[in-house]
Amino acid sequence: MTDTAWLGTACPRPSETHRNAAEARQNTLTKPPGSLGALERIAIQLAALQETERPCADNVQIVLFAGDHGVTAQGISAFPSAVTVEMLRNFASGGAAISVLARKLDARLEVVDAGTLATSEVAGVVTDKPCHGTRDFATTPAMTPDETAFAFDTGRRAVARTVDRGAHLLIFGEMGIGNTTSAAAVAAALLGKAANDLVGAGTGLDSDGIRHKARVIDAALDLHGLKAPDVPAADVLMKVGGLEIAALAGAIVAAAQSRIPVLVDGFIVTAAALAATRLNPSCADWLIYSHRSSEQGHRLILEALDAEPLLDLKMRLGEGSGAAVALSVVRLACALHGEMATFAEAHVSESL
Amino acid sequence: MTDTAWLGTACPRPSETHRNAAEARQNTLTKPPGSLGALERIAIQLAALQETERPCADNVQIVLFAGDHGVTAQGISAFPSAVTVEMLRNFASGGAAISVLARKLDARLEVVDAGTLATSEVAGVVTDKPCHGTRDFATTPAMTPDETAFAFDTGRRAVARTVDRGAHLLIFGEMGIGNTTSAAAVAAALLGKAANDLVGAGTGLDSDGIRHKARVIDAALDLHGLKAPDVPAADVLMKVGGLEIAALAGAIVAAAQSRIPVLVDGFIVTAAALAATRLNPSCADWLIYSHRSSEQGHRLILEALDAEPLLDLKMRLGEGSGAAVALSVVRLACALHGEMATFAEAHVSESL
Repeated sequence: MTDTAWLGTACPRPSETHRNAAEARQNTLTKPPGSLGALERIAIQLAALQETERPCADNVQIVLFAGDHGVTAQGISAFPSAVTVEMLRNFASGGAAISVLARKLDARLEVVDAGTLATSEVAGVVTDKPCHGTRDFATTPAMTPDETAFAFDTGRRAVARTVDRGAHLLIFGEMGIGNTTSAAAVAAALLGKAANDLVGAGTGLDSDGIRHKARVIDAALDLHGLKAPDVPAADVLMKVGGLEIAALAGAIVAAAQSRIPVLVDGFIVTAAALAATRLNPSCADWLIYSHRSSEQGHRLILEALDAEPLLDLKMRLGEGSGAAVALSVVRLACALHGEMATFAEAHVSESL
Repeated sequence: MTDTAWLGTACPRPSETHRNAAEARQNTLTKPPGSLGALERIAIQLAALQETERPCADNVQIVLFAGDHGVTAQGISAFPSAVTVEMLRNFASGGAAISVLARKLDARLEVVDAGTLATSEVAGVVTDKPCHGTRDFATTPAMTPDETAFAFDTGRRAVARTVDRGAHLLIFGEMGIGNTTSAAAVAAALLGKAANDLVGAGTGLDSDGIRHKARVIDAALDLHGLKAPDVPAADVLMKVGGLEIAALAGAIVAAAQSRIPVLVDGFIVTAAALAATRLNPSCADWLIYSHRSSEQGHRLILEALDAEPLLDLKMRLGEGSGAAVALSVVRLACALHGEMATFAEAHVSESL
């Protein structure tokens, strides 16, 4: 069995020295103190993580993990499973939302087939999967322990590939028909909440579809004994998670262990982040929350993580798209922090 | 007296044909319909305004109007009046927040002295003012009718200077110690609300300071008869407005008349936008709201304008800084709308 002990290795602590220096700098810039709001908070957090007084988010890598879900057999998605592999080609050929955003933002995009149904390699996509899709968790655990451990490692390997490229910040995205069902099940189990509180429309279910999805999740949580308190996160992921969701959790832990801040995307990535903080609580410091999606359960997971996302644009696409949009704001926060004149430099009077 | 009849000339109507074409295009792109949330709404609104199926926000001009306020004699600001002119120099030399943002966003920045206390021209600043600051509206009308008309024209002239440059979008900003007091007074009069509902901390008043500011505004509304219903907006601006606020209102009307969409900034620009929509209701279609500031009264003005701002970053700086940050999001909305593949182009299956 693949070793998962690495998941527990402690992540570095943010630098309080650099946090204090960045905070002090903000208060000398030619503006009323605090008047840049969340932009000040983000610049200061990044300064502490990057161990610098002037943080930077120029060099950014986006890694998108794709996977398929056996639970689609239960009719829980508005789109057919075939779309996952069709979208792999769309990511690679530049037509998907995240492809456009990566291009505009001059960020690298790597797409990883972490477990789709594709039976051959897709050009321009890294294939790194233990099997073709998960099993239907309505009847059986979604993954074996070995498949789960492999998926964590898929995430770690993706981060390892980026380390040499010196990324200031990582964005993880996902694609997988059925994965809002899996993410809702994971979050419900980890938070001890009812399926109803976590399910939403996904790619576009109507209210009957949402109720059916909640019933499928609720029954699966019973079947797998996931309504008990304190089930380990790795067990939850194995039983109702997905290959791309486990890869996301592994990637988040690995990024934090490698001192790379993560700009967290929407519902599914946040569910994976919740799992990551259960696998290794010390990774929490490295997470910056990009946006609140309109997928209903996102708010609850964000609250549990004590997260204040930057944006609320009613997006619900996934792919890392919300984080990519927020990157443009993070970059402006860094520019303001690093390039504004101080009161002394600009000969501007301070407050009365 | 300067003629203000131009303010009433009707603005063009948005193109329903192009709105419909843009909406139809959004529904063919490779994503669940509606999943880009506010980004879809903004792209569609811009398409209707720019009369194109694929809108663009690459070429952007920022115009910042500065003015001083006699009401600072009442001790309503945390910063001294001298800061307005000091900041003019900081804008011009590139050290202010809006200077940094304009540079990063590759947007042109023009700074207009629309009525500061500066007694000589500041290098790199356009001087276009009828007088040096307003009178203290706690005791006398802030401006004469001629000064008010001149200020409207300052805004119109600024827009005229940008027309040849082919801007896809305009951002207006402001700077003026005391101008949250003036903007709150204007908004209270136009909305028929108590001063208390509109005042906030401005550049950094404590709670005693905020109460004092509200009392000053309340007394001025009584003094000038502005608690009566339906006082014309031009009268309100003359009595408790500011030179930069009237310039903003004139610029907003002129931009809409010239078919240029305006990305509306925070509290003060939104108060000017409220005045503009009273001076000429047909300009309302041309306004895109960028952010909700943490200045307390902004929410009320936005509600009155039926505005849904893109961002809520707890900013309260002014200068056009909130709109500039939102510009990065608007540009991504345009890129997604224009460059994503359709289901047919990418051979991706549509929903079940």
